[in-house]
Amino acid sequence: MHRVVIVGGGFGGLYAAKALRGAPVEVTLVDRRNFHLFQPLLYQVATGSLSPGEIAAPLRSLLASQKNVRVLLGEAADLDSQGRLLILAGDAAVPYDTLIVAAGARNHYFAHPDWCVDAPGLKSIEDATAIRHKILYAFEAAEREPDPARRRAWLTFVIVGAGPTGVELAGALAEIANDTLRNDFRSIHPEESRILLLEGSPRVLPTFPEALSAAAERSLVQLGVGPRTGVRVTAIDADGVTLESAQGTERIEANTTIWAAGVTTSELAQVLEQRAGATLDRQRRVIVGADLSVPGHPEILVIGDMAHCEQARFEQGQSSGDRTPLPGVAPVAMQQGRYAARSILARLRGATPRRFRYRDKGNLAVIGRAAAVVDFGKFRFHGLPAWLLWLFVHLLYLAQFRNRVLVFIRWGFQYLTFDRGARLITGVTPRE
Amino acid sequence: MHRVVIVGGGFGGLYAAKALRGAPVEVTLVDRRNFHLFQPLLYQVATGSLSPGEIAAPLRSLLASQKNVRVLLGEAADLDSQGRLLILAGDAAVPYDTLIVAAGARNHYFAHPDWCVDAPGLKSIEDATAIRHKILYAFEAAEREPDPARRRAWLTFVIVGAGPTGVELAGALAEIANDTLRNDFRSIHPEESRILLLEGSPRVLPTFPEALSAAAERSLVQLGVGPRTGVRVTAIDADGVTLESAQGTERIEANTTIWAAGVTTSELAQVLEQRAGATLDRQRRVIVGADLSVPGHPEILVIGDMAHCEQARFEQGQSSGDRTPLPGVAPVAMQQGRYAARSILARLRGATPRRFRYRDKGNLAVIGRAAAVVDFGKFRFHGLPAWLLWLFVHLLYLAQFRNRVLVFIRWGFQYLTFDRGARLITGVTPRE
Repeated sequence: MHRVVIVGGGFGGLYAAKALRGAPVEVTLVDRRNFHLFQPLLYQVATGSLSPGEIAAPLRSLLASQKNVRVLLGEAADLDSQGRLLILAGDAAVPYDTLIVAAGARNHYFAHPDWCVDAPGLKSIEDATAIRHKILYAFEAAEREPDPARRRAWLTFVIVGAGPTGVELAGALAEIANDTLRNDFRSIHPEESRILLLEGSPRVLPTFPEALSAAAERSLVQLGVGPRTGVRVTAIDADGVTLESAQGTERIEANTTIWAAGVTTSELAQVLEQRAGATLDRQRRVIVGADLSVPGHPEILVIGDMAHCEQARFEQGQSSGDRTPLPGVAPVAMQQGRYAARSILARLRGATPRRFRYRDKGNLAVIGRAAAVVDFGKFRFHGLPAWLLWLFVHLLYLAQFRNRVLVFIRWGFQYLTFDRGARLITGVTPRE
Repeated sequence: MHRVVIVGGGFGGLYAAKALRGAPVEVTLVDRRNFHLFQPLLYQVATGSLSPGEIAAPLRSLLASQKNVRVLLGEAADLDSQGRLLILAGDAAVPYDTLIVAAGARNHYFAHPDWCVDAPGLKSIEDATAIRHKILYAFEAAEREPDPARRRAWLTFVIVGAGPTGVELAGALAEIANDTLRNDFRSIHPEESRILLLEGSPRVLPTFPEALSAAAERSLVQLGVGPRTGVRVTAIDADGVTLESAQGTERIEANTTIWAAGVTTSELAQVLEQRAGATLDRQRRVIVGADLSVPGHPEILVIGDMAHCEQARFEQGQSSGDRTPLPGVAPVAMQQGRYAARSILARLRGATPRRFRYRDKGNLAVIGRAAAVVDFGKFRFHGLPAWLLWLFVHLLYLAQFRNRVLVFIRWGFQYLTFDRGARLITGVTPRE
């Protein structure tokens, strides 16, 4: 029986495994974690709206009824592309006939890897609970702090990067300060917090059309967020951020900085470079062919955030002939996962798989209560209807019916009470 | 205005603060954590039924509407009983007129503090997610392990201590192995797991009447748990447990051991001993007077798990004149918290507070689905009605309406599907 090994249980890997249901193949899904994580809602864990268990579903549960799938908890460490073996940490080898690599992305600090200490990014459950700790602890520390300057530093929050994640975090932080914590403290006024959203390009949500960027910026300003575009961060430490802009160099004293500016791929990309001759782009994504395979290795497919997949005119509104790679978003990974499964089955039938074609169904970003932007290419809108659509789509794609019910209830309570239910400070406090 | 300082936001401290609503006192509640934890359901987090956020509620939310209460995140480190100052870690001093100490209990390993590494106890959210990690990881490791003896050690679970927590953990573990994971693995059969429940006294649930202990033991055996009573644990390490019984010395190879055998009090008990002349019992509980105050310090009250409060015949069915201290359970702490508030208000009016009297409303312990024991003194029953009562009481006392709804839904899903929704392996893996 044809053996398919999938690395990664994110959107790409999970949708590939599901699309192989009932097929005459033996599937092994390898992941370092035992759960599929719904990353688009991770910022809601970081901001105390949801609990980790509500946006994660055990991979074994999701695939339990699929008898041709085996789930293995393990870390892919190396590859023997001649012998067609995936080597796990601890030296176990898993033989494959087709390998699907979908190990996703992680935070990237460009030339400053040390910034990860003071400006955590948002990629895992642990990241999210650590950021939740940092945010909530800042208000607690401010409440106790008698010195006004140090109190102000506790109440200053800097988010680096104004893509969808940065905008979502900034909006949620503003709602925490303005609404959730309004009556909770006696010495401080949380609504006096400063929330700064820094972005290198000239506008927030740079991948969206300009009109929607402008709408998002208005919503942010209304919430009390200060978007600063066209700035470059030159230093981050425990006490704040230094930035450069047209106005010169500026220092912001802030005890809480969050990174939402850059990602790179899993270490597995370098393994593919060394062991299978793959070419990586500047963000270490694997440049794949039209069938998502590594050139020279039709039996190795790379999908999702790890893949650099060029497709002319993938988005309406972009100039034709544009060779921008597909963005690292869930719909791309889902479609590539399903494509990978179909293409394996086509080859088993002796057919040549058709080239992968991304169907762009639109882009969404949420800012806060009743504030979101939607870009369907022809249709673009923002405000309440965009927000309702965002809610609907996210509930729809959340894995497991139980999680949909729990998240729906949490959102309902939050909408009615302005309170956030998962405001726990757990784990160790990194610094006082 | 009379200043009341409460240390600890568990059942004792929270109920004291709530009972002071509207009273002409200034209340400061100090806790190391920003949330009230519903400890009776902590084992359900450890066994993947509930998420941490569902059994915890932010103290600030719970007390936001009570204008005379201030919540302070901080750790009580020392006491100046002459100057009536509570000293926090970091040297801030909080002045009090009355101090209520309700800092609770923590795990205690008697003469073997090193056992905490290999046999974690269940007292905090972090403990619960670490135990959840240990339990779920053991099945994952067994699935990958080719050697039968090592596989068996991964599938052997030892719980030390058969009080309510130990019985609850053992029952839940058996249900995970028998039902939840039944179809999830391809190489192992989770239902072949061995679950051993070790207890030093001659029966499980030793504080319950003998007939209920026997009923609980039958339920455990039915679930496949092996209760071993009258045994003494002499060694615990990463590879297993050594125990002594009437049959001699025995070694159990097990990669997962959980501690549910002993508790001691917070370090604050020793501070009270040194700074206020308090006397501690063998479990380091503070021996309090009939009004719960430290002898010689009517302005310092100790309540909840930290207090050694004797009360003759506190339980029906116990011989009269029995001087056993009240047990460390939630109802005792709640009643003592309310009493502390009433007694402060009585003194402010110039009255002498009446002595504290515990009204025992009964004891409950749950084993698993449709299996629980209830001891109301005169009425004792077990099985389905006891289980339904247990569910009802725990939902009723859970703080915040939202959590009640979420937990109710989680339980409903689990009852119908046998699945557990919060089966995440998070944090670092302690050992391979």
